[in-house]
Amino acid sequence: METCAKTEINEKDIKALQDTIYVIGGKWKLPIIYAICNGNKRFKAIKNSIPGITTRMLSRNLKELEDNKLITRKVYTDYPVTVEYTFTEYAKEYGTLINQMIEWGKKHRKVLVER
Amino acid sequence: METCAKTEINEKDIKALQDTIYVIGGKWKLPIIYAICNGNKRFKAIKNSIPGITTRMLSRNLKELEDNKLITRKVYTDYPVTVEYTFTEYAKEYGTLINQMIEWGKKHRKVLVER
Repeated sequence: METCAKTEINEKDIKALQDTIYVIGGKWKLPIIYAICNGNKRFKAIKNSIPGITTRMLSRNLKELEDNKLITRKVYTDYPVTVEYTFTEYAKEYGTLINQMIEWGKKHRKVLVER
Repeated sequence: METCAKTEINEKDIKALQDTIYVIGGKWKLPIIYAICNGNKRFKAIKNSIPGITTRMLSRNLKELEDNKLITRKVYTDYPVTVEYTFTEYAKEYGTLINQMIEWGKKHRKVLVER
């Protein structure tokens, strides 16, 4: 029992965990986060930096990240109109968690290789 | 840039993150972890506590959790032979991360409800 995540995980916990995974799950979320992290702010720049992503899939995933308040879509009404995607302040908190997940994944790979 | 998970996420980081998600991803991993956490050690007990899971799916997922060194399959050669599934010491480390993911998911739900 003491080796469990908690003494007792309840259904609400599982739902919360699934939410967390959902937010960055799927094939494209991470490459998009990666692209924006590396300075790509415009739709076209993000699209060009991710091999194989379609316009439709990029739109949908950007929308989901926006709905989850992780990125902001900013429209500049100059001529020509430009749209920029940037990370929100709130995304910082998730950033810490993502880093921990990255570190765990790296350690885990070593553990599996060692056996 | 300062709002990103890291100043720069590289492809190796993305792979590591995908590994982490993979280990507890899918429909059944969490309910199984949940079942074992709540004291079910035997295959049949685990199966009975998870509505809808088939013998085949449970076997496969237990095998994957075992391959990832998160659970141990112990065979007792008494009569009748019994098999017990328990968490490994190594799973503890993942447990902490799972708890953080749960907490983040709960906070995230509040953030989304607030808007």
